[in-house]
Amino acid sequence: MFEQFLALIRKYEIIAIYRHVNSDFDALGSQYGLGQLIFDNFPEKKIVYMGASNPDLMSKMGIDFEQAVIENPSCTLGIALDTANLARLDGDNFEKLAATVKIDHHVVVESYAGLNIEFPEASSTSELIGEFYCACQKTLFLSKQAASWLYFGMVGDTNRFMYEATSTRTFEIAKVLLAAGIDKKAIYQAMYTRPKQELDILTFIYTHYQYRDGLAYYILSDEDLQHLGITRERGSDFVNTLANVAEFQVWMAVTENRAMHNWRVSLRSSGVPVQPIAVKYHGGGHCQASGATVSDLNELEALIQDLIEAIKEENKHASC
Amino acid sequence: MFEQFLALIRKYEIIAIYRHVNSDFDALGSQYGLGQLIFDNFPEKKIVYMGASNPDLMSKMGIDFEQAVIENPSCTLGIALDTANLARLDGDNFEKLAATVKIDHHVVVESYAGLNIEFPEASSTSELIGEFYCACQKTLFLSKQAASWLYFGMVGDTNRFMYEATSTRTFEIAKVLLAAGIDKKAIYQAMYTRPKQELDILTFIYTHYQYRDGLAYYILSDEDLQHLGITRERGSDFVNTLANVAEFQVWMAVTENRAMHNWRVSLRSSGVPVQPIAVKYHGGGHCQASGATVSDLNELEALIQDLIEAIKEENKHASC
Repeated sequence: MFEQFLALIRKYEIIAIYRHVNSDFDALGSQYGLGQLIFDNFPEKKIVYMGASNPDLMSKMGIDFEQAVIENPSCTLGIALDTANLARLDGDNFEKLAATVKIDHHVVVESYAGLNIEFPEASSTSELIGEFYCACQKTLFLSKQAASWLYFGMVGDTNRFMYEATSTRTFEIAKVLLAAGIDKKAIYQAMYTRPKQELDILTFIYTHYQYRDGLAYYILSDEDLQHLGITRERGSDFVNTLANVAEFQVWMAVTENRAMHNWRVSLRSSGVPVQPIAVKYHGGGHCQASGATVSDLNELEALIQDLIEAIKEENKHASC
Repeated sequence: MFEQFLALIRKYEIIAIYRHVNSDFDALGSQYGLGQLIFDNFPEKKIVYMGASNPDLMSKMGIDFEQAVIENPSCTLGIALDTANLARLDGDNFEKLAATVKIDHHVVVESYAGLNIEFPEASSTSELIGEFYCACQKTLFLSKQAASWLYFGMVGDTNRFMYEATSTRTFEIAKVLLAAGIDKKAIYQAMYTRPKQELDILTFIYTHYQYRDGLAYYILSDEDLQHLGITRERGSDFVNTLANVAEFQVWMAVTENRAMHNWRVSLRSSGVPVQPIAVKYHGGGHCQASGATVSDLNELEALIQDLIEAIKEENKHASC
């Protein structure tokens, strides 16, 4: 399949690389890693990077953002990375292109391209771009820059080789990227360095979090968010400051959206299935990581009661 | 050299495996990983695990501690792991044994054994045991249990593939250990799960830490330590809760030892050389990670002034 992909790259003059909306390290890492890999090996081709800017991550990754336009869809190869379904693709015109490829590591929900390279068992799409390089190693050269972006993506999606999807192939690709001369230290520094202000947020969470019967959570009201100088989305990002605690079977972040008159809930669990409860409260997600929305603090209390019930249920089974 | 090591293992009936005092994940991981590897392949041999108990880490790693005695030194092969110099070896009689081997990844200061396998560029001694297995792969079998202990050691000493010593070989060995069927999730859970009480310590540090001119630090008096229910050593362990902050060029933990009438200082830096200052205050260590001792808070203030000077000096050079 990778040979077929390489043949398509050889065939087209213009190559537009897409990824999902709300880009993360893997979306950007696979996008710019693949783009650089193509550029290094086929410098005559025009690479177009699709999708909105993400100033924070792009600055960490050393990516220069340029607004991209596809001028001639009928001569362009489109590659969609890290995007399970077409609706989440960031950028227009994908369906109008001369040929299309999807490369993704999510559970397959929609095979929307001409060539679909789908490996749900891979740790990340960046790992799959690494696989592509390995498969075509005899004809392709991997530069330090391309390898660096792919490393950002792999580390981002595996939480530095921690999550379950980290496999022998992940370590093999990490080895190959390291051998390309990447500056691991600089990458980790870029990914992990936080501003002093972040400690104020941690302080707030650790001094205000609440704990009941296996459930730990923090609430950031609109006022708290303003006081801390962060967005609601950023407020939820800290949910895992309550992770890895023996007593906490479920942990969550609750952030207010005053404009929408509701509260966003980010749920995490070490085993208790939280997804059914998220569905009950206008949300969903994975078994142990879900999101939900409640309209007020009364509804939040109902959700909390449901979670405590689910924890009790889980513990009943565990002790059988 | 590994063939020579294997020949020694084959030759002796009793094999005593040592590691350094104040054991950590790598010391125990390499010790029990190698012991299990030998046991799996030569079940007729008697393996003796030397050194003091470490109930906390041993329970996390699933190690049953048994007080060991060497009954017949003249028939015993001794293997010292992860120990740079003989003075740091945990356990007696090493020099009286029939034959001795040292396997270590520290800077070579003392080659105290008959056969010295020293690779300072390796990430960990556990990685070196992995190298031994790889070198003798045709004749040795690697069990899940042996691989698990080695993985504990590699993750411990690299801070999960973060520290500089993580190399292509580290990823290669990680791949080999994973292929042996280890339960990565269970290992990470054992290593990272913390009691709820730890959040009280974090809360204390984040609400009490002080910041001056690039230097961040927290002080735990004897009273604070008692209040938090932790030892002085444990109090220093949290120094890296102040790591990875853009504004902090040096960060440190200061813990009181009332019985000794002094304060222990743990110093870390993102670039400023702190070792010379540690030496000035009865300590030493690495360029960016050192320890020191001050007799009172006045001397601490002098140390703080020296650190702020060192930060200024560093920034002067950096801006040239």
